[in-house]
Amino acid sequence: MNKHAVFYNIGNLLKVEAGLLALPLAISVFDGDGNFLAFLIPITLLAALGFLLTRLGKKDAVIYAREGFAIVGFSWLLISLFGALPFVISGEIKNFIDAFFEATSGFSTTGSTILKDVEALSRSMLFWRSFTQWIGGMGILVFVLAFMPTTEARSIFIMKAESPGPKVGKIVSKVKITARILYAIYIALTALLIILLSFKMPFFDSVNHALATAGTGGFSIKNAGIAYYDSAYVEAVLTVFMFLFGVNFTVFYLLLIGKASQALKSEELRWYVAIVVSAVFLIAASVNSFYASFGRSLRYSAFQAVSVITTTGFATTDFVLWPAFAQTVLVLLMLVGASAGSTGGGLKVSRVVIYFKMILKEIRYSIHPRQVSTVMFEKKPLSDSTQKGVAHHIVAYLFILAIGTLITSLDGFSFATNFTATLSSLSNVGPGLGAVGPSGNYAVFSPISKLALSFIMMAGRLEIFPMLILFSPRIWKYR
Amino acid sequence: MNKHAVFYNIGNLLKVEAGLLALPLAISVFDGDGNFLAFLIPITLLAALGFLLTRLGKKDAVIYAREGFAIVGFSWLLISLFGALPFVISGEIKNFIDAFFEATSGFSTTGSTILKDVEALSRSMLFWRSFTQWIGGMGILVFVLAFMPTTEARSIFIMKAESPGPKVGKIVSKVKITARILYAIYIALTALLIILLSFKMPFFDSVNHALATAGTGGFSIKNAGIAYYDSAYVEAVLTVFMFLFGVNFTVFYLLLIGKASQALKSEELRWYVAIVVSAVFLIAASVNSFYASFGRSLRYSAFQAVSVITTTGFATTDFVLWPAFAQTVLVLLMLVGASAGSTGGGLKVSRVVIYFKMILKEIRYSIHPRQVSTVMFEKKPLSDSTQKGVAHHIVAYLFILAIGTLITSLDGFSFATNFTATLSSLSNVGPGLGAVGPSGNYAVFSPISKLALSFIMMAGRLEIFPMLILFSPRIWKYR
Repeated sequence: MNKHAVFYNIGNLLKVEAGLLALPLAISVFDGDGNFLAFLIPITLLAALGFLLTRLGKKDAVIYAREGFAIVGFSWLLISLFGALPFVISGEIKNFIDAFFEATSGFSTTGSTILKDVEALSRSMLFWRSFTQWIGGMGILVFVLAFMPTTEARSIFIMKAESPGPKVGKIVSKVKITARILYAIYIALTALLIILLSFKMPFFDSVNHALATAGTGGFSIKNAGIAYYDSAYVEAVLTVFMFLFGVNFTVFYLLLIGKASQALKSEELRWYVAIVVSAVFLIAASVNSFYASFGRSLRYSAFQAVSVITTTGFATTDFVLWPAFAQTVLVLLMLVGASAGSTGGGLKVSRVVIYFKMILKEIRYSIHPRQVSTVMFEKKPLSDSTQKGVAHHIVAYLFILAIGTLITSLDGFSFATNFTATLSSLSNVGPGLGAVGPSGNYAVFSPISKLALSFIMMAGRLEIFPMLILFSPRIWKYR
Repeated sequence: MNKHAVFYNIGNLLKVEAGLLALPLAISVFDGDGNFLAFLIPITLLAALGFLLTRLGKKDAVIYAREGFAIVGFSWLLISLFGALPFVISGEIKNFIDAFFEATSGFSTTGSTILKDVEALSRSMLFWRSFTQWIGGMGILVFVLAFMPTTEARSIFIMKAESPGPKVGKIVSKVKITARILYAIYIALTALLIILLSFKMPFFDSVNHALATAGTGGFSIKNAGIAYYDSAYVEAVLTVFMFLFGVNFTVFYLLLIGKASQALKSEELRWYVAIVVSAVFLIAASVNSFYASFGRSLRYSAFQAVSVITTTGFATTDFVLWPAFAQTVLVLLMLVGASAGSTGGGLKVSRVVIYFKMILKEIRYSIHPRQVSTVMFEKKPLSDSTQKGVAHHIVAYLFILAIGTLITSLDGFSFATNFTATLSSLSNVGPGLGAVGPSGNYAVFSPISKLALSFIMMAGRLEIFPMLILFSPRIWKYR
């Protein structure tokens, strides 16, 4: 392990978090809400520790996969710990574990909350809470790579460890430029959404909901969530934008540089559209008797299906009251998740498609054992190492799902509650079924469950392995 | 596809089923219960079709993997269809889908029932129902290989397709002798269990429960199940024997030929023991407040943990009333299942251990990408093809679990009911949670769900792929 590289990059990251906290600080000063110190203290701590670490580290230190994993794993733990401080210092979330859960839920873009009355929070805290999702969506280390001084050599390993999907490629040859392009698209789409939402809700509300949508987080600043606005326009805009933030950003880049036909040929995009459309109609058929017209049931099912598959987790209705079939479709969408290279979580559409093709290949192999067959994806044969990677990923996913369900079951809630709370956290969705449905709340869980779920949310966002290796004694051994 | 091989082996199998039906026929004649024709008609049909198919086929036809899969897939469909006939003809189960479900549940060693009053059945039907589990436990095609004329060459492919576990080896060099050794151990253990049980229950009861235990099926001939006998002795004997039938039979063979130290070195055996012991104590701790003493909660938890991990599915208490934690442990045991090469179902202990080692390997790989690391099991490095096989297996398992949960959810029961009914069927356990708990019943499901679950039980018993390839157009194409 090259400590210099780890220190330098984590140091940079802490400085960035200090800078990002200046935004809610400004709101606090403007509103005069007395939360000035709640932001200034963490900023000071972050800046001091950041400068210390960059001083201890070296800019040009060599980074390999293990440094990438270690940087990402530690960074996310640290940003969540520091990100919880404003809530605790202001007293708006008194318990540190609750504040840590909320911050982790934000950064991991899960959007599940322990707050029973979110409207009681000050505007500066609401903004910080919303902002964490936006930072976590594209990845804070991708931000560091884009805008902070760092060595180009092998920083791809940091990006790989933080970006979702089975394969991570650079859009252009330089990591820094790739990261900047991704952030430019992200900022542009977010800005457009803020404008569109502001027609039907106050500007502050539109900013918060746009940040929650862009990061596919799903925090709302209203107790009633999106249903508060009771506006078909708002729901339609959010449905479209949630869908967009669940698309691989490479598709937007290709559209941007005029390669529309290449963009639309993306196999993952086509599967994503197919899954969304099928899910919307399956749910609409299932819930049809709940609503006055098929159009209305289509409106609710489209919003809900897109919200869940993109792992945003907004709800306009309490889907726990829906028929079992509709709920099961939603649970499956939680598992599938959004596209690789989007801001969404879950297994990712591309992995699910690869799993499906693996089964077909095994069937073919059973029938013709001597015929060489390869798994093709995006018109290219998948390498053995990619196939192994996706296989290891699902196995690790299941282990964490099993352990999470076991730990949360100690609190005595129903199997559906524990299982979907864990799945929803691991896939970074937010709501689950039972006690953690749209009108429920994660406050019901014990501190142990909250800590376990916080870890699971982070593991889900970072695709598990950067978190798991923090527990490996090996990573501490090599210097 | 070599039709001659398929016809010949399926023909033999149908003749064997005709022969096996002679046993309940004898009971029917002895009891004079009027079910004479209910057995004679299927026997006649099976014998006629059997002779026709062996005549059409060829004994020495070449068998490869695809023929092995096709033989096994079709065979199991046919034995279940014919096995359902006695129930329907006698009118003791009037609906054919119900009878097919019950027969499939028996042959697949699941042991879930649609019968609300099992004691209303005649003794001949009860025996046939119990006997199906025993036949399914070791595999009816293994029986064919052991005792019917067949070519030695490549019949290993039939055994591979029917026997559970990631790797199937011959105990001795000849498949026929291996099959005979396996059946000899199976018969001896079953006989011993009959004797031990007969001390505390009528002989007929002890035979039926021994057949259900040996096949890890779990059908009881009493409405109250094993709790009917209210005997610590019966529970202790069953706990030990359920545990034994969940052990890889190669271990018994090694003990038999005096290689005890080699037998006890089995890595899978050690993990199996470790998982069982941990589960028993976890459950006992969780249910402690339910019972008068820790000894008593240990008794119930030992019986239940062993019953579920071996996928037998007997219950001495309604575990749906237990705390969520104990129930979750049981659900995880359903997923894990028994040892490879035992009569039990589930993923198999060896696969779960391999999955766990795969995760550790991925973590090691993240830290030292250039260090060659292999997954070791039973002190041997696992081949790439075995690793791929177990990866494809879990992916297929999950797909079937997802589809089954989706189909059963159409009936409107809770998520826990649908999910555990599917998992329990796929792992060949029997009871699940919610409406399909120990005091519940699969009669609640619609005919569509019953058919889907029947297919899933068969797919679970045959480790999925022999069933899936029946749907592949490719298998019908080649001649």
